[in-house]
Amino acid sequence: MNEPRCGRQTWQFQQDIRLLGSAVAVGPLEGDGPLAAEFDHIHDNMYAGQKSWEKAERHLMCQAVETAIEKSNLLQSEIDIVLAGDLLNQTISSNFTASKLNIPLLGMFGACSTSMETLSVGAALVDAGYAHYVVAACSSHNCTAEKQFRYPTAYGGQKPEYAQWTVTGAGAGVVGKDGSGPRITHATIGKVVDMGIKDPFDMGTAMVPAAVDTMSTHFRDTGRVPHDYDLIVTGDLGKIGYAIFKDEMKELAYDMSPVYNDCGLMIYRPDQAVFSGGSGCASSAVVTYSYIMNQLRAGTLTRVLVCATGALFSPVSYQQGESIPCIAHAVAFEAVKEE
Amino acid sequence: MNEPRCGRQTWQFQQDIRLLGSAVAVGPLEGDGPLAAEFDHIHDNMYAGQKSWEKAERHLMCQAVETAIEKSNLLQSEIDIVLAGDLLNQTISSNFTASKLNIPLLGMFGACSTSMETLSVGAALVDAGYAHYVVAACSSHNCTAEKQFRYPTAYGGQKPEYAQWTVTGAGAGVVGKDGSGPRITHATIGKVVDMGIKDPFDMGTAMVPAAVDTMSTHFRDTGRVPHDYDLIVTGDLGKIGYAIFKDEMKELAYDMSPVYNDCGLMIYRPDQAVFSGGSGCASSAVVTYSYIMNQLRAGTLTRVLVCATGALFSPVSYQQGESIPCIAHAVAFEAVKEE
Repeated sequence: MNEPRCGRQTWQFQQDIRLLGSAVAVGPLEGDGPLAAEFDHIHDNMYAGQKSWEKAERHLMCQAVETAIEKSNLLQSEIDIVLAGDLLNQTISSNFTASKLNIPLLGMFGACSTSMETLSVGAALVDAGYAHYVVAACSSHNCTAEKQFRYPTAYGGQKPEYAQWTVTGAGAGVVGKDGSGPRITHATIGKVVDMGIKDPFDMGTAMVPAAVDTMSTHFRDTGRVPHDYDLIVTGDLGKIGYAIFKDEMKELAYDMSPVYNDCGLMIYRPDQAVFSGGSGCASSAVVTYSYIMNQLRAGTLTRVLVCATGALFSPVSYQQGESIPCIAHAVAFEAVKEE
Repeated sequence: MNEPRCGRQTWQFQQDIRLLGSAVAVGPLEGDGPLAAEFDHIHDNMYAGQKSWEKAERHLMCQAVETAIEKSNLLQSEIDIVLAGDLLNQTISSNFTASKLNIPLLGMFGACSTSMETLSVGAALVDAGYAHYVVAACSSHNCTAEKQFRYPTAYGGQKPEYAQWTVTGAGAGVVGKDGSGPRITHATIGKVVDMGIKDPFDMGTAMVPAAVDTMSTHFRDTGRVPHDYDLIVTGDLGKIGYAIFKDEMKELAYDMSPVYNDCGLMIYRPDQAVFSGGSGCASSAVVTYSYIMNQLRAGTLTRVLVCATGALFSPVSYQQGESIPCIAHAVAFEAVKEE
């Protein structure tokens, strides 16, 4: 058997690992954005027919998971494990979703990097034969995140222009061996990087060093360069982080400009009032599990790298004067020409 | 290659997977308990020399991880991944510990089941060759948990006798292929089970059905029965849960009585004022990574099953009237006679 790693931090999957199906559910602002046609479920209300925002968030996750399984032509009972996480305290969106699904759960927390963390570990478990089919899922909701991380929503606290807007949505992907769908080829597991930034509104800037660390590690480990991909996205650096990231990669001699974008910029129109762009677990999850997968299936994209970025702080840690530790995990996808 | 699973939920490790070293750090009450002689670090103060309880908790985790690596005769730079989780919002103890360690992080959340969740996935990654060495770690702290989950500690809220006492401590184990130390043979990944219990003080009762589900699945998947082990522990069911669990297993024709104990009962003396017993991620982690590993190394125990139990609720979920979804993950260990 080959070594299923290239370098210390990058896994190279040995089997033909596929994303068999994926689905997303989103809120009204996302449904009004430029990627609306790619989405499976769009809710015109932040409650999504539920009695609280928290219940709405888990409803979105449940919808995404159920639809992803359906689109994979599988039954819920065929899924061995759901790997899921979210931003809420004790990841309740994931716990209550898994409770409803009756599928074994591996709960994960990587803040907004959870989308690619769950997918990386899920793909590794399938590759090694620990599971036949897994679902990777995550969610975020603008109102549940605002009231938990910042101020009561009714207070109407003002934000600086460099702040970001938590995406309301959920994304899920079903991973299996063989079958049809884009191939998952590599995953790069990130280190926690903390450059001392303490402003909880400026997460884009805080997350850049982690994104640079994981992406340059990915290139070093795989021997690839940016133009080996026709699209490379970060999860949610927003406008500010996007520009700094491109500059910092250039200093390391990686020219990102022809292929680089950020999910937090892709999910909203420039004229939507989202400050510096989208953030939250759902930013990378919604864009990856809809637009990117659809393009890979259609063959209009052939090789994509998704680097999901997470700010690993809590209100308690920043109120105690701590800086914001960050992390990024990256997954590489390839289109497969079906015969 | 053999199928690395027996049954849908149980992983059977194919290689010679070992717990190369483990360590724990605890607070004063635990250091006054019956297992004190087994502990690596005992702090006589809840602050453990730090400026806040939160910083104390991550200091314990850091100590446990660093000592576990030392006891494995490895360098920190040889560890490929740390898999860690804790009870604090956004698992900040784990994030800040990983930030200090400079080792790639897979953050996990399974409430008090996190000890065996991180160890299961860590062992699977080593078994399949995705990592050479990993550390699994988790922590809890009585004061950080009280102020976060219940009332401000200074308020002195009274508790019912059936409540439990969050263990202050951290445990960590280093997993590698070959080498010396107890063997990790199986892991059973649990489903979320929710029987509608809503009292956040009665977690022992709430967690019983999840423990029963995972343990009976483990027996079914492996073809084993309770007396194939010379010790089986649950993580933190406490006095109330312990009794109900034994009864419910008996109804399924599994007689647990000769070999069964609960980590939450083992870690304190009966006369220590801890209500129904210990709870928290550290309950199973501290007992497993000290006493149980020491006994397996000494050969006084030969085969042990640790079933860590977790209550997957948050203050928001129970204040919104939700029941408490629970989960349990189990790991089987075997003593290895060194030549």
